[in-house]
Amino acid sequence: MKDFEKIDSAVSQLKGIKKVYFIGCGASMSDLYPAYYLIKEKGKSITSKIYTANELIYSKPDDFGTEVLAVIASLGGNTKESVNAIKYAKENEATVIAITGTANSPLTISADFSFIHGFQESYAAKTFKMQIALYISASILNKFDDYEDFELFKNGLTKIDDLIEKSVKLNTPKAELFAKKMKDSSIIYVLSSGASLGVAYSTASFLFMEMQWLPAVTIHTGEYFHGPFELTEKKVPYLLFMNEGSTRHLDARALEFMQRFDAETFVIDAKDFGLGNVISSKVVDFFNPLILTGVMRPFEENLARERNHPLTSRRYMWKLENY
Amino acid sequence: MKDFEKIDSAVSQLKGIKKVYFIGCGASMSDLYPAYYLIKEKGKSITSKIYTANELIYSKPDDFGTEVLAVIASLGGNTKESVNAIKYAKENEATVIAITGTANSPLTISADFSFIHGFQESYAAKTFKMQIALYISASILNKFDDYEDFELFKNGLTKIDDLIEKSVKLNTPKAELFAKKMKDSSIIYVLSSGASLGVAYSTASFLFMEMQWLPAVTIHTGEYFHGPFELTEKKVPYLLFMNEGSTRHLDARALEFMQRFDAETFVIDAKDFGLGNVISSKVVDFFNPLILTGVMRPFEENLARERNHPLTSRRYMWKLENY
Repeated sequence: MKDFEKIDSAVSQLKGIKKVYFIGCGASMSDLYPAYYLIKEKGKSITSKIYTANELIYSKPDDFGTEVLAVIASLGGNTKESVNAIKYAKENEATVIAITGTANSPLTISADFSFIHGFQESYAAKTFKMQIALYISASILNKFDDYEDFELFKNGLTKIDDLIEKSVKLNTPKAELFAKKMKDSSIIYVLSSGASLGVAYSTASFLFMEMQWLPAVTIHTGEYFHGPFELTEKKVPYLLFMNEGSTRHLDARALEFMQRFDAETFVIDAKDFGLGNVISSKVVDFFNPLILTGVMRPFEENLARERNHPLTSRRYMWKLENY
Repeated sequence: MKDFEKIDSAVSQLKGIKKVYFIGCGASMSDLYPAYYLIKEKGKSITSKIYTANELIYSKPDDFGTEVLAVIASLGGNTKESVNAIKYAKENEATVIAITGTANSPLTISADFSFIHGFQESYAAKTFKMQIALYISASILNKFDDYEDFELFKNGLTKIDDLIEKSVKLNTPKAELFAKKMKDSSIIYVLSSGASLGVAYSTASFLFMEMQWLPAVTIHTGEYFHGPFELTEKKVPYLLFMNEGSTRHLDARALEFMQRFDAETFVIDAKDFGLGNVISSKVVDFFNPLILTGVMRPFEENLARERNHPLTSRRYMWKLENY
C-alpha cells in the first residue's frame, strides 16, 4: 500500500532530524538501498547510512541519538535483529519509522510511525517497501534540504506501478529463455551500479543463493574492471541490470566487455521499458531499482520451475531456532 | 612509509571540512574502507562516504564541494578513474589527499597533499595505505569532533607493524594447509563484519577472483543468516575473518553455524594473534583489518604456488587498452 498522505503527515511531525539510518536484514536491507542512495547523492545538510541490523546493535555508532531518523524494514515484521534494532533506536531516543507487511507485528508496536507494504499483491507491490522508503527520503530532503525535484519525484511514484506491470508482461519471453539457459549453471555473476547496486546484491544473495541455492557474486560495474573481469570468458553467465541516467556509462562499458569476450550475458535494461519516457531525467536515477526489481521476478519464477526448485524451499531458514 | 608528522602537518592546514569522501578503485577502494568506517562509527559532526571512482564522477553527488576532503588512493598512482576523480574533486573545490605508491605520479601532481605508501617493503607495508587513511580519519575526528581516543589510536599505530610481522610467521603452517585443501576448489565464500568487511571484499574480489581466477562471494556475517547460509553444507569452503571487539559476536555466530554443518571452514582470527593485548579495547575495532590483511597474504602466496598460478597472471589487465 502506498499511502503518501500518511507519510506526509508523519514527516510533517519530524523535528531536528540531521541523519537518516536505514536498517534491515537481507532483502529488506537491500530494499532500503535506493532510499539511502537518494540522500547520499542529493542530501546537503541531511546525511544517510545503511546498516544490517545486527551490526548497528553491536557497533553502537557514536552519533546515534535524538537527531536520527531510523527507517527500519522487515518483510513480515518479526525479524529478530530488526526488532532488537527498534528497541535499540528507541532507547537511544531516535525517531523510528517501521516499514513492514503486518500491522501489529513486533516491528510496528514500538515504532513512532509505521507503514504497511502489500508485498504479495502484484509485481509492482514487490517494490512498495522501496517506494515507501524512497518517498520518505524525498520528503525528508524536501523538508530539511529544499529538494528541488520533489514534485517530479512524487509524480514519478504515481506512474511507476503501471510501467512495472506492463514491462513484466513484455519481458516474459526473455525470462523464459534465461531460465532455460541457466538451468544447469553452477554460478552466476550479477552486476549493476548507482541506486541499483542493492538490486544486484538482493538478486544474487537472496533470489539466487537463498531461494535457488545457486552461488552468485555481486559486482559493481565500476569495480568490475579493477579485478573481477578476469573471470569473464566464453559461456560464463552474467546478469547485468542496466540503469538509465547518470551511471549508465559504467553499465554499458561492462556490457561491451562481456560481449567482446562472448560471455553468456543476460541484460535487464531500464531503457528497454521506456523508463525515461515516464520519469523525468532529473530523478530517473532513483527509479531504476523499481523497474529492475519488478521485471526481475519472472526471471526467478521461471528459473525455479526449470530447476524444479520452488522459491520457498529452505534447508535452514524457518527450521532452526536461534538463526 | 608511515610519516605521521607529515599527516599532522597536512591536517593542521585543513579548514571547514564537514565531509570526508574516500575514493578509489578495486583493492585501493577496499583499503580505504576502515578509514571510512572509523568516521561512520565515531563521527559526530563529520560524516564519511566511500565511492568507486567512476561512480563518483558520473553520479556527481550534490554536496561535493568546498566542505569536502577527498581521500583518493591508488596502488601505482595512475589508475585512470582515480586520476579523473582527482580532477573532478579539484574542479569542485574539494581538498584532495592522495595516497599512492609513486611520487610524481598523475595522482600526486594535482593533489593538495600526497602520501607515499611502501607497499612492497614487508607484510606490514601491505597495510600502509590503510594505516595512512586511518590516521587521516582519526586526525580529522580529533581536530573537528574532539575524538577522545586519538592518543590511544596513534599509539596503536606505532605497535601494529611488529604484531603483523610476528603473526605472519606464526600463521605459516595454517596458510600451507589452507592452500593444500583449497587447491582444487572451484569456489570460496569470504566473510567478515565491522571494519573488516573491506578485507573480505578485497580478498574475495582481488586476491581470489582477479589474481587466482577463483570465484569468490563476499558475505557480511550479519547478513549470512538472512539468506546465504542456505548454501552451507559439508565440505563447502568458507574463509572467515574474525574481529576482536564490538562485532565479534556476529562472526562467532557464523563460525558456530559453519562448524555445526561441517563446512570446510578456514578462520583467520585477530584474537589468535593477541591484537587485544597490544591495542586498547577502545580502538581495537579499527585495527582488525590491519592484522587480518597482513596475515592473509601468505595464504594467498601458498595458494598461488599450490595452484601453479602466479599472483601476477592476468588475462586482460595491463593487456587491453581502454580497460
